[in-house]
Amino acid sequence: MSEAQAPSARTRVVREAHRAVYDRETAYRILDEGFLCHVGFTADGQPFVIPTLYGRSDDNLLIHGSAASRMLKNMKEGLPVCLTVTLVDGFVLARSIFNQSMNYRSVVVLGKAMLVDDPAQKLEALQLLSEHIIPGRWADVRQPNERELKQTSVLRLPIEEFSCKVRTGPAIDDEEDYSFQTWAGVLPLEMKTGELIPDERLLQGQKIPEYMRNYSRKHQAEG
Amino acid sequence: MSEAQAPSARTRVVREAHRAVYDRETAYRILDEGFLCHVGFTADGQPFVIPTLYGRSDDNLLIHGSAASRMLKNMKEGLPVCLTVTLVDGFVLARSIFNQSMNYRSVVVLGKAMLVDDPAQKLEALQLLSEHIIPGRWADVRQPNERELKQTSVLRLPIEEFSCKVRTGPAIDDEEDYSFQTWAGVLPLEMKTGELIPDERLLQGQKIPEYMRNYSRKHQAEG
Repeated sequence: MSEAQAPSARTRVVREAHRAVYDRETAYRILDEGFLCHVGFTADGQPFVIPTLYGRSDDNLLIHGSAASRMLKNMKEGLPVCLTVTLVDGFVLARSIFNQSMNYRSVVVLGKAMLVDDPAQKLEALQLLSEHIIPGRWADVRQPNERELKQTSVLRLPIEEFSCKVRTGPAIDDEEDYSFQTWAGVLPLEMKTGELIPDERLLQGQKIPEYMRNYSRKHQAEG
Repeated sequence: MSEAQAPSARTRVVREAHRAVYDRETAYRILDEGFLCHVGFTADGQPFVIPTLYGRSDDNLLIHGSAASRMLKNMKEGLPVCLTVTLVDGFVLARSIFNQSMNYRSVVVLGKAMLVDDPAQKLEALQLLSEHIIPGRWADVRQPNERELKQTSVLRLPIEEFSCKVRTGPAIDDEEDYSFQTWAGVLPLEMKTGELIPDERLLQGQKIPEYMRNYSRKHQAEG
């Protein structure tokens, strides 16, 4: 991909520009496989980076939190944010330390997050967020009541200014290093699920729902 | 832990303050298990959040990158940064959507990153960073030459102003929701390693090193 395709000067990838990807399809595949983002905002000249769950709905990202949160308080005032999602795919062991690397896919979205104020839109946004994280769960839980809705802030960030970085494949060593006596290769890394732990106060007869049996973020991205 | 223990007003956890932990031991355990951080900095009023590898050495965090990187360029000028590390441990499925949650451990470190300029210190920092990510690897690779060292920037962030957030255990539902008919529990999530992929141009007789056979971040944190 040519650097000229960057949506803006500030989303143009400077470091290792050959790993930059600017197309929406790649970005959405990464965003759909992920569920945790790191949101950056500035308060009193100090940058803060906060981990939080997110959901994608069409060309928007949704995040939520308690109305008391420092991050959301600042966002309401329309501060610019940066939302970054990173999927780690593996360690790349090269023959030289300089060429050691990581396989990963990341998306950086810049913009202004807008508060979703309308109660109906807020409820819809919470449902979309929930379905992004655990598809099928929304229909199975007790829905939010008025008090809970008031305590929850939902923010929408339009996906307009963004860039991706993707590194895949084997180690790329300098030609003269291929004769260096060491092991080289890739150690794949992946976020995996463990055995489900049923709640101790589960009502009798409550079976594990189908959507939890085969939970996979990969499916999410392909679905 | 009481909120009064926060090292500073700006690292005091505002949202879900009962999950806040401010002791160094907890922070270091999280930092030692992790290897990927999200670094936030502000440029022209816009926050940026960039994923990068890091290492901990005593009371310092080390990050590196190409000298051309936008992030490091800004850091050299002494801009304040926020370095955040998040370990995801599981999805918490509650009976109400409002109490749905995530088990996780995160550390937020605020401060000014300082450029490690002295070549000997830079080399040492690169070794510490490498050993944080893959202990044992440094001795097995071709060490950096002068040209490569010049191309690499290393930054040191003292761990002074920091806070952690930790959520563990089962779903905590409102008492009246325990009679709600649905499955509840925890889906553990963990970063797992896959099968090692040897490089196609591996020299004959190169065996998988011991440190790659049983690679585990949990060991790192306990070691």
